[in-house]
Amino acid sequence: MNGADTLIKTFLNCEVDVCFTNPGTSEMHFVAALDKETGMRSVLGLFEGAVTGAADGYGRMAGKPAATLLHLGPGLANGLANLHNARRARTPLVNVVGEHATYHRHLDAPLTSDIAGFASPVSSWIRVSESADQVAADGAAAIAAARSAPGQIATLILPADTAWTETDAGVAALPAVAAPTAPAQDPARLVDVLRSGEPVALLLNGAATSGPGLTLAGQIAQATGATLVGDTFISRIARGAGRPGVERLPYFAEQAIEFLSRFAHLVLVDTKAPVSFFAYPGVPSELTPDGCTLHSLAAPGEDAVGALAALVEALDATTTSAGPASLAPPAAPTGELTPEKIAQAVGHLLPEDCIVVNEAATGGFAIPAMTAQSAPHDWLDLTGGAIGMGIPAATGAAIACPDRHVLNLQADGSGMYTLQALWTQAREGLDITTIIFANRKYAILQVEFMRVGAHNPGRRAMDMLELDRPELRWVELAAGMGVPGEQVTTADALVAALGRSLSTPGPYLIEAVI
Amino acid sequence: MNGADTLIKTFLNCEVDVCFTNPGTSEMHFVAALDKETGMRSVLGLFEGAVTGAADGYGRMAGKPAATLLHLGPGLANGLANLHNARRARTPLVNVVGEHATYHRHLDAPLTSDIAGFASPVSSWIRVSESADQVAADGAAAIAAARSAPGQIATLILPADTAWTETDAGVAALPAVAAPTAPAQDPARLVDVLRSGEPVALLLNGAATSGPGLTLAGQIAQATGATLVGDTFISRIARGAGRPGVERLPYFAEQAIEFLSRFAHLVLVDTKAPVSFFAYPGVPSELTPDGCTLHSLAAPGEDAVGALAALVEALDATTTSAGPASLAPPAAPTGELTPEKIAQAVGHLLPEDCIVVNEAATGGFAIPAMTAQSAPHDWLDLTGGAIGMGIPAATGAAIACPDRHVLNLQADGSGMYTLQALWTQAREGLDITTIIFANRKYAILQVEFMRVGAHNPGRRAMDMLELDRPELRWVELAAGMGVPGEQVTTADALVAALGRSLSTPGPYLIEAVI
Repeated sequence: MNGADTLIKTFLNCEVDVCFTNPGTSEMHFVAALDKETGMRSVLGLFEGAVTGAADGYGRMAGKPAATLLHLGPGLANGLANLHNARRARTPLVNVVGEHATYHRHLDAPLTSDIAGFASPVSSWIRVSESADQVAADGAAAIAAARSAPGQIATLILPADTAWTETDAGVAALPAVAAPTAPAQDPARLVDVLRSGEPVALLLNGAATSGPGLTLAGQIAQATGATLVGDTFISRIARGAGRPGVERLPYFAEQAIEFLSRFAHLVLVDTKAPVSFFAYPGVPSELTPDGCTLHSLAAPGEDAVGALAALVEALDATTTSAGPASLAPPAAPTGELTPEKIAQAVGHLLPEDCIVVNEAATGGFAIPAMTAQSAPHDWLDLTGGAIGMGIPAATGAAIACPDRHVLNLQADGSGMYTLQALWTQAREGLDITTIIFANRKYAILQVEFMRVGAHNPGRRAMDMLELDRPELRWVELAAGMGVPGEQVTTADALVAALGRSLSTPGPYLIEAVI
Repeated sequence: MNGADTLIKTFLNCEVDVCFTNPGTSEMHFVAALDKETGMRSVLGLFEGAVTGAADGYGRMAGKPAATLLHLGPGLANGLANLHNARRARTPLVNVVGEHATYHRHLDAPLTSDIAGFASPVSSWIRVSESADQVAADGAAAIAAARSAPGQIATLILPADTAWTETDAGVAALPAVAAPTAPAQDPARLVDVLRSGEPVALLLNGAATSGPGLTLAGQIAQATGATLVGDTFISRIARGAGRPGVERLPYFAEQAIEFLSRFAHLVLVDTKAPVSFFAYPGVPSELTPDGCTLHSLAAPGEDAVGALAALVEALDATTTSAGPASLAPPAAPTGELTPEKIAQAVGHLLPEDCIVVNEAATGGFAIPAMTAQSAPHDWLDLTGGAIGMGIPAATGAAIACPDRHVLNLQADGSGMYTLQALWTQAREGLDITTIIFANRKYAILQVEFMRVGAHNPGRRAMDMLELDRPELRWVELAAGMGVPGEQVTTADALVAALGRSLSTPGPYLIEAVI
């Protein structure tokens, strides 16, 4: 076996069996090694932003890392924005970045660059594999790093000769994975706060928004009257009928401060004290109101589920209901198409166990409320603010969960960043419905332009924020990559199109003009 | 004036009057400042790879920097691959990267990242502007850095409060720009080499491939019998009738070594000793054959034109002709469409003063020979190997040279990386014809797979290198972004379509199926 063979076999040995790829010459031995291992699913993306975004969506849904295969520094660079999002989502993810042969690096050939430099801002773990004998162990170490709590990005740089040289090193086993640590402070100390009679919010993210963590949070809320609040952007949250309801911290700083002013206590569960997404002149950046006391139940990297369980126990609430929402989806909308009607159509038709990938931006404001009592579903947000996550992440989520439908709620401006992932959806025949919120502008920026106090919104400035000259024609863009679709301009047409798409295998794109 | 106002006015004062943009919230004051200055042309791109690639094409043709406006770390990250190409092309270019307000950075909001870390691998100059009083001077320093020989990338990081705070600092003037230095060794020492009767090649790039440098190189070749050879990938070269002919160093290492074995001496003019693009098992990475002696006339950063002039003087060749090519374009091709026929059609129809942006990859092998005696034109290569340069660079070249037609020879796989730039072409009404070489595969990788000795090219491996499942439909992709086009499958249809496009204003895309 050569180094590449030992690396792929090590990945499979460590339960990494999906590789999102866009290879180049320096990765050809890795591709040859992939070819031999039928247990490894290779998924090609036509741009690295599609590759890394898919690995993010996969990791969030699979709960284990996918690998990416990227071509040298520029290939990694093209994937960095979605790696930034994955870092913020704490997604486990292993990058394999091809590099020139060890003896070729110093020659400064055209594609030579500082790969570790590019990787550093998004990676918790970086290693250059300097010999074929070492690559299997390096690969296993990368996976262990990626799986370490709370979920990390590991980047393995693989010189071409490390891949192509024969080795007797064999396949490596997974080293110890760092588990979440016990919370620094005793969860039971918060019983008095929760029983104080003062208004308390639990601010949730990470392990507290899905699975047993969310159920435990629901029990605490039911037993004490506390309010469950999610961060504005959450890596993955279970929602809909049968799940405890979770309010969301508003996006705009003033609204978030106003929202939090209801509470005397804010208990952080797998998240940090809330801060404004951007700074605005004259508006505080730290959102916790003066009269509100912060408490930490579990910081990121600490065992949030264990802490929640300990608190449930201390509250004597182990048999309390988690307060599941009932099933009560909205009726089908009719008439003129508006963002509210899109939300209503989604809430009406959302199928059971659907995965919602939300990058709808301003157009999606009504969707959380309209889907709160729809069929149970998982929901993935844009965690890092780097637009262009939606289409790729939907692709990766569908690879992770082949039996579930994926619904991608997608702003048009953001969708243009990584539209190439539609091709992968067609190629892999994935059950993904994309709804494009076609407002033909960077609407959030038109709002923000005023909010930051940049007065005089002249024509030339607004021109930088509008996408209607020329209009994007999403149905043709999708068709160009093999994804069928249609444009809808009424709520009735949207309901019909969405219903058809959800019952038809394969990807589909609906351009909803608003 | 606020900091953003002083920065824009300083840019205009330093003759930077084009800004390629994709702004976000943290750049809204810069956008507002742009709005007030009608002398500054703002060009919106729907993805930052389109923005930076356009700035590269602009800088190569204008000979001065454009600015880019990028949104925080992820916005910069999306533009890094084309900044890598621009670095290799030595293109003068100034990035303005918005950052959170100075007091907001430490809060680690979702979009916070290590911007300088992302910028470092591609930038020769990086500065964070820490106050509104400083931003004008910082902007002028960035432009001076970008214009310093041999052309550099300068990245100015602009915290939002630095932009929005009022200042009395005023507009800054351009500081001293570093000129090329005199060559370390006397050019005249090479007279003996050139007169030795042994075969000599001048290996050219940078200032030696266009303008007075190329004429001087031509005089040396005519006076001494030396051969003019260009690097495999050149930032900008003047070609066609009236210009000295320049052979090109072949791409593949074995062919390059064979090619160079004809020469006893290799004289480097504004370039480095040739190295292989990639390493291959058993093939040397350094391409200069054992029997060939290397000489440096001018290293990058040294005054190549001055060195060439001194050598012409020493050779007593100041009145020698530069050996211009005659005008003898090929006849129009007919019949089945092949890569050779595309080249022939291009050579036949190439209009005078056209700018050719070449990212045709394997499909373009016949174009240099077929255009060597076409009408005079400028030619821009993919200098850094980071695919996705063509459509954006063509966009920027057209902005720099509004009176010239731009012809983008574009591989399909590479074109998919930054297809968003087609929208900017439509929006700005640019005279650009894009020919897509639609072979529906990463053809170069199918060659490289064999060459690197990765045997057993199984179906699963080849599947990673083919783009035909589903087929890309470029005419629909272009139409989706407002660019008209057509697919051609015969040489006759290509000639007709290309002829029409070259005589019609605005962008056009021809998908040439091969």
